Amino acid sequence: MNPIVSIIMGSTSDWKVMEKAATLLNDLEIPFEINALSAHRTPEKVEEFSKNAESRGIKIIIAAAGMAAHLPGVIAAGTNLPVIGVPINATLDGMDSLLAIVQMPPGIPVATVGINASLNAALLAVQILSLSNEEIAKKSKNYKENLKGKIEKANQDFAKIEFKFKTN
Amino acid sequence: MNPIVSIIMGSTSDWKVMEKAATLLNDLEIPFEINALSAHRTPEKVEEFSKNAESRGIKIIIAAAGMAAHLPGVIAAGTNLPVIGVPINATLDGMDSLLAIVQMPPGIPVATVGINASLNAALLAVQILSLSNEEIAKKSKNYKENLKGKIEKANQDFAKIEFKFKTN
Amino acid sequence: MNPIVSIIMGSTSDWKVMEKAATLLNDLEIPFEINALSAHRTPEKVEEFSKNAESRGIKIIIAAAGMAAHLPGVIAAGTNLPVIGVPINATLDGMDSLLAIVQMPPGIPVATVGINASLNAALLAVQILSLSNEEIAKKSKNYKENLKGKIEKANQDFAKIEFKFKTN
Amino acid sequence: MNPIVSIIMGSTSDWKVMEKAATLLNDLEIPFEINALSAHRTPEKVEEFSKNAESRGIKIIIAAAGMAAHLPGVIAAGTNLPVIGVPINATLDGMDSLLAIVQMPPGIPVATVGINASLNAALLAVQILSLSNEEIAKKSKNYKENLKGKIEKANQDFAKIEFKFKTN
Amino acid sequence: MNPIVSIIMGSTSDWKVMEKAATLLNDLEIPFEINALSAHRTPEKVEEFSKNAESRGIKIIIAAAGMAAHLPGVIAAGTNLPVIGVPINATLDGMDSLLAIVQMPPGIPVATVGINASLNAALLAVQILSLSNEEIAKKSKNYKENLKGKIEKANQDFAKIEFKFKTN
Amino acid sequence: MNPIVSIIMGSTSDWKVMEKAATLLNDLEIPFEINALSAHRTPEKVEEFSKNAESRGIKIIIAAAGMAAHLPGVIAAGTNLPVIGVPINATLDGMDSLLAIVQMPPGIPVATVGINASLNAALLAVQILSLSNEEIAKKSKNYKENLKGKIEKANQDFAKIEFKFKTN
Amino acid sequence: MNPIVSIIMGSTSDWKVMEKAATLLNDLEIPFEINALSAHRTPEKVEEFSKNAESRGIKIIIAAAGMAAHLPGVIAAGTNLPVIGVPINATLDGMDSLLAIVQMPPGIPVATVGINASLNAALLAVQILSLSNEEIAKKSKNYKENLKGKIEKANQDFAKIEFKFKTN
Amino acid sequence: MNPIVSIIMGSTSDWKVMEKAATLLNDLEIPFEINALSAHRTPEKVEEFSKNAESRGIKIIIAAAGMAAHLPGVIAAGTNLPVIGVPINATLDGMDSLLAIVQMPPGIPVATVGINASLNAALLAVQILSLSNEEIAKKSKNYKENLKGKIEKANQDFAKIEFKFKTN
Repeated sequence: MNPIVSIIMGSTSDWKVMEKAATLLNDLEIPFEINALSAHRTPEKVEEFSKNAESRGIKIIIAAAGMAAHLPGVIAAGTNLPVIGVPINATLDGMDSLLAIVQMPPGIPVATVGINASLNAALLAVQILSLSNEEIAKKSKNYKENLKGKIEKANQDFAKIEFKFKTN
Repeated sequence: MNPIVSIIMGSTSDWKVMEKAATLLNDLEIPFEINALSAHRTPEKVEEFSKNAESRGIKIIIAAAGMAAHLPGVIAAGTNLPVIGVPINATLDGMDSLLAIVQMPPGIPVATVGINASLNAALLAVQILSLSNEEIAKKSKNYKENLKGKIEKANQDFAKIEFKFKTN
Repeated sequence: MNPIVSIIMGSTSDWKVMEKAATLLNDLEIPFEINALSAHRTPEKVEEFSKNAESRGIKIIIAAAGMAAHLPGVIAAGTNLPVIGVPINATLDGMDSLLAIVQMPPGIPVATVGINASLNAALLAVQILSLSNEEIAKKSKNYKENLKGKIEKANQDFAKIEFKFKTN
Repeated sequence: MNPIVSIIMGSTSDWKVMEKAATLLNDLEIPFEINALSAHRTPEKVEEFSKNAESRGIKIIIAAAGMAAHLPGVIAAGTNLPVIGVPINATLDGMDSLLAIVQMPPGIPVATVGINASLNAALLAVQILSLSNEEIAKKSKNYKENLKGKIEKANQDFAKIEFKFKTN
Repeated sequence: MNPIVSIIMGSTSDWKVMEKAATLLNDLEIPFEINALSAHRTPEKVEEFSKNAESRGIKIIIAAAGMAAHLPGVIAAGTNLPVIGVPINATLDGMDSLLAIVQMPPGIPVATVGINASLNAALLAVQILSLSNEEIAKKSKNYKENLKGKIEKANQDFAKIEFKFKTN
Repeated sequence: MNPIVSIIMGSTSDWKVMEKAATLLNDLEIPFEINALSAHRTPEKVEEFSKNAESRGIKIIIAAAGMAAHLPGVIAAGTNLPVIGVPINATLDGMDSLLAIVQMPPGIPVATVGINASLNAALLAVQILSLSNEEIAKKSKNYKENLKGKIEKANQDFAKIEFKFKTN
Repeated sequence: MNPIVSIIMGSTSDWKVMEKAATLLNDLEIPFEINALSAHRTPEKVEEFSKNAESRGIKIIIAAAGMAAHLPGVIAAGTNLPVIGVPINATLDGMDSLLAIVQMPPGIPVATVGINASLNAALLAVQILSLSNEEIAKKSKNYKENLKGKIEKANQDFAKIEFKFKTN
Repeated sequence: MNPIVSIIMGSTSDWKVMEKAATLLNDLEIPFEINALSAHRTPEKVEEFSKNAESRGIKIIIAAAGMAAHLPGVIAAGTNLPVIGVPINATLDGMDSLLAIVQMPPGIPVATVGINASLNAALLAVQILSLSNEEIAKKSKNYKENLKGKIEKANQDFAKIEFKFKTN
């Protein structure tokens, strides 16, 4: 089984944020891999990874980083694959990381999701894969449909709240 | 009993903030309803809600949302009723939510209150209803008058604080 | 002809921002007045204004202010009428003014619109007045309907843009 | 010729930012369309657009918006296609728009690029299309390779700068 | 014993911040008073206080407030006495309060100290009183001299830290 | 004639901001001096200035600085006189300067006014001097009274604005 | 044994942040000293320290400070040695401190590292010392090489995470 | 003549900011080179440059970058030489660039100077070189001494300003 999504992060402490991405991909039965890489500590491995990802069959890279978050951009510089960046909130509420990921110069885009939004990173990967894979597309639409359930559940909860002048 | 204020939020987690709005409306005997809606998860229901609110007798809509908070603006797009937006502090101290609610483009206003300020949202609704309902107006003025009590109480507390060179 | 909306600002320099509010009210034939007041320079007049606005027949107050923008909140403290606050961009991109208007303490709401968003302030006033005045409601809905015209116009403009691989 | 990328924006004033995206797609011979839509002024059209985009053959949507920028998120709510969001700098240096686009709630991702970064939005679209289209992939890699030219050109310029103690 | 410094705040919750100001004034034997006032809940009392403070013998007013902090500015509008403003951190790390106090319009200054910096507010009052009172001046200089003690104490603590390559 | 207010700034470029302070003091006939000092370029002169200001008869120091604005705080460290800090907008809209002046540690207050608010700095000095000088106090109250004139003038301007539905 | 790095901070509370700097210097066997100094409480000692540091054999100064952090800049004003500034997060997430340290005026640089980044401050000192000391250079390169170990360790941890569709 | 300082930037547009650094090095007769490199467009050249800089005799690297400014950090990852980072103001007043440079993770420091502060970057390089080069040290101290001239000049300018109540 060949991985088609590669999840990259810089330290084990990022795992508590990124676990949701892995879980979603697993639930939708999309083969993925998880690797630790650092734009600053293992730059050669980042370069090697970037260069070989496409030929290894990877379709999408999800890269998470905090603070002066260079990892997603540096990977994007080395590959033609779409790179999804997840800003990790390590300092400054994650604002440093968000800006260091999203404000890429012209020519090297990173598809940025919200601060700590690893679930959305995985979903975006799924949407991209859906373009050329009907099975994944079906699962993706299913997933989205199920989001309505949370709202229905909330409505059921709210229905139980009692006030004299509450009318529903 | 027909609701005239509709409180909308996107998840059960918002209830701990919004409860104050419901309690105030209830205390002032203003019929209201509580519903869960999401601009992103149940867009059709939001549209339906927006279109029908006025004909159902709703006068004012209070919509709470966090992060990229689209709900108040999207509801405002679909109705001529005044929409009061409550930015919920979910991330970034609520600054993302405040800007995503208050910075509406020309043509579609949202009456924005402070971050997590659900009580003020309800009071603003009460003030608007007061314009055409003398009974509510009386209650509203009463409520405001009672705010002075908190200051009087604080003064009583401060009077008890003892310092050698404190003169009151 | 009695004014039902009162537009307040602190200096003549605010007029270039607030003119849009006046123009819209005038176009929709809603009687209004314009006054200069300052929470800091003429506090007694602000207090007098706030106390008497309701009995003079005013329904809604639109108050604009920049920097440490106290005017909307101070007026709101003295009246039960809804007060719409317009943050003026005088310094810091208007962020000081936005926070000084929207972050009101519990008990004294100000219905805040976007930075320099005087048009939306007037529209919000119109929506509130629509609740008890069908004629205004009709005009308000008309106005909203006309907003679509801008989008249609933009589409016509975009239709004229020519690229070899543009397909519409 | 069927469009496979759809560029959406809310007003003609956004065109000066978005023109770069159109030019790049055109240069790489990728069929695209340009439409004006507004989450607030033409919500029904947005909904209709979102629902039908996939069946019309669109693969990727690029949506630009400023201020309380709801358009990308609202479109993303209505389609399973990847939506690339471009924050437009209309106020607050574009920070309001960036946060209103990137901070999407769990379940509805928007692939956000930098403020006014329409070129990167188009490149990201190209990278995604490259996954299932070798011809586009080749062009995309070519484009990236050519970016080095700018650096080489800069080096030639710097080589001409003369200082006594400059050694290259 | 007549108070010459008046400490004002809007709620009992501010006391935990402001206690340091009272303690310092008491330690330096400067008669003071503590009152609760609110620019929004008791505007008439604020006005009355501002007008009478000087004739009651007050020399300096220390006013603390959080969020859209109008109290210091509104008091400053009503008196010729120097008003020292203390931004309270209630929301947004106190940034809303700081801006709402310090960014006063031309003509009505508020002497602003740091967020929650009640001790510095009292010290500033002491410095101002020192200008015309030699006894207070002597105490003030003494106090300042004693600040060096903290640094000496820290040096003694650091002297005890042991590292092989630490040389002092 | 002995100066009693000392205006300090770090460069000639600050003069365009600080001129208002000098003009006001001159208009109110308060003797003052103007000096260039820099916490970083002439630290010894700053120290000398701080130590001798009081014995030279100076009562209040107004210190302006931009960027990492250390001058007001460093002067305050060396004197018991009240120091009024004026944050100059040189970069970042003046936010760096504001924070570097207002956020002083416990023990060394700087009375901070708004960004570029040199007029308010001079007025604050005047208010402090008024505490022990009746003549200045009279001028100060006069000045404040005259501020109302601007509002009256604005009202006259607004009275001339003509709209069909403007009622005043 | 003469110290060649001097670590300066303003209070014992900074030690919990700065301990990492001391530990690293100790581990690399670089003689250092630790002193408490305050730009505001002991300005004469700061001046004395700055003037004498070089002749005492100090090569690099690491200065930590929070809030309106003047210490690094004031020391830099008094010496020709490189000064490394460490912004301490005491308030506002450390943003006030960062700006008060990094935004130095032309002529007096402070080499600023990240908020609370005392380890990086020590490493920067080590890199500078490496320029003229081969032994330190060797240790420094060793240290850097060892950073890869953390990434390898993370990869080993990630290898143990099990998901059905995880492929590595 | 071998260069000992290497100035790196990503585009010709950065030259207008960085020229001051080159001019200062030239004036102090320190051999330097200027190169264009991009962490995103020419990553291999950045890696090559970083690896070889030390053996080529470079002592210090000054790297300037704007937006999501990765260049200084990526170079620092590949060399043991001190890297001085200059945040360029391209967007968001340079705040994105400042955070992307200064907030480096533990292990890879970048000596960050102020936004656009290329002169200070060169001076910091000079201070570091002074540690092992007495001639440069002499020039560096001279330069610093001359900074006082600007303050003296400003004092002469201020001496010429005439006000009736100005006493110096």
